[in-house]
Amino acid sequence: MGRASKGHASGAVALNIILVRPQLGENIGMAARAMLNCGLSQMRLVSPRDGWPNPKAQRAASGADIVLDKAKVFDSVGEAVADLERVVATTARNRELSQRILTPRRAAAEMRGWIGRGERVGILFGPERTGLTNDDMVQADTALSIPLNPQFSSLNIAQAVLLVAYEWMAGDENVPAERMSEHSTRPAAKDELQNLFDHLERALDQSGFLRNKAMRPAMVHNLRAFLQRAAMTEQEVRSFHGVIKYLAKHKHSED
Amino acid sequence: MGRASKGHASGAVALNIILVRPQLGENIGMAARAMLNCGLSQMRLVSPRDGWPNPKAQRAASGADIVLDKAKVFDSVGEAVADLERVVATTARNRELSQRILTPRRAAAEMRGWIGRGERVGILFGPERTGLTNDDMVQADTALSIPLNPQFSSLNIAQAVLLVAYEWMAGDENVPAERMSEHSTRPAAKDELQNLFDHLERALDQSGFLRNKAMRPAMVHNLRAFLQRAAMTEQEVRSFHGVIKYLAKHKHSED
Repeated sequence: MGRASKGHASGAVALNIILVRPQLGENIGMAARAMLNCGLSQMRLVSPRDGWPNPKAQRAASGADIVLDKAKVFDSVGEAVADLERVVATTARNRELSQRILTPRRAAAEMRGWIGRGERVGILFGPERTGLTNDDMVQADTALSIPLNPQFSSLNIAQAVLLVAYEWMAGDENVPAERMSEHSTRPAAKDELQNLFDHLERALDQSGFLRNKAMRPAMVHNLRAFLQRAAMTEQEVRSFHGVIKYLAKHKHSED
Repeated sequence: MGRASKGHASGAVALNIILVRPQLGENIGMAARAMLNCGLSQMRLVSPRDGWPNPKAQRAASGADIVLDKAKVFDSVGEAVADLERVVATTARNRELSQRILTPRRAAAEMRGWIGRGERVGILFGPERTGLTNDDMVQADTALSIPLNPQFSSLNIAQAVLLVAYEWMAGDENVPAERMSEHSTRPAAKDELQNLFDHLERALDQSGFLRNKAMRPAMVHNLRAFLQRAAMTEQEVRSFHGVIKYLAKHKHSED
């Protein structure tokens, strides 16, 4: 079992997901899959009920086998956290312990700070149904609780791992909160839009749509506002020129 | 099938989770459970493959039956979104469509704005494996994509619903990012801490631990800094008084 190698060595982050006395192999596999989805690959297991390795875990991991293959197994929580500088314990319920309880988001921010300073961090997840004992909890610096519907909280371990790992990943500020799909052409420049507006207004003038002189300015403004809001690409502007041209050409067909 | 009743009427938010052509009943049930965990209960189904109701969905919902019981079933995406003002489509891949693509967090913020203005919102989730078609995607105002590990992205529908619903819930600013467990007594006041420091230093002076006059100030400062950092409760301060008292009384026992 020995000492875990330093996480940074392999390019992986020094964040360890520690499943304490997990019962179902399927949950271990699903947790591995949840981790890898979020870029985490360092799993530790404390006394898995059905021994290790576990074929059911392998099956449920569906492609995340790499996480299971290098999982480290320990006999006790104490051994599993021995080489870590920081430990966070997940809990679903209130305890008689006096501990800080963080949301996954706040915990992710704190963990980023610790890991940025070179500290190794572990997150403890308790067994199905019972969760971590108080003896487990006091091995941790801090508690973490996922804020859920107070009338219905029913996450399995793999879902809890997913949410915590997701918060870890979502805190990465390199991910833009908004982007355009890669197939988009560049946004239209304002002179291209101006040409389009001119084309549309000429066509509408010829068609008689804008014949009411008093209404014309408001109608033109409304059209321009809506077309500005659409944030068209230059390709869409070109398409729309075609739409106007063809509609104007065939404008009698619907009469 | 008719028009959905306004979400606000029942105290529920006007946010609808729409599963488009879902295949496995189990995934529908797990999605319902994920929703209810995050306080969402309005589900719509478009052409579920195995018909509706589906006993497998009921079983997988384990307690979230209320969501399934009031789920609305539609024949097409168009009908399912007809009474909504805003639609967001989830996608795992890049499309040839030109759409804004938001993270779940940004999407949650935008949806809060819409719903705050009284608009009804739906989020489309595509079928297992294939996801939404482009015909489905263009029914939406905006696309949403969950940023995952580019080398391994493998979420099932229920997990995708969980992450999106969680982001919706986590954006609720009424949830404190950090709190103390409810069983904690109040934080110690500074005069209580001062009494504790005095007690400790008296005991350490008597024990000879602080006998080095030159070192004494630094040692005292270090002890105080660590005890301040521990953010003790008044109960812990009382306990620690007892610890000092008893250690001092029995201080020869370890000699």
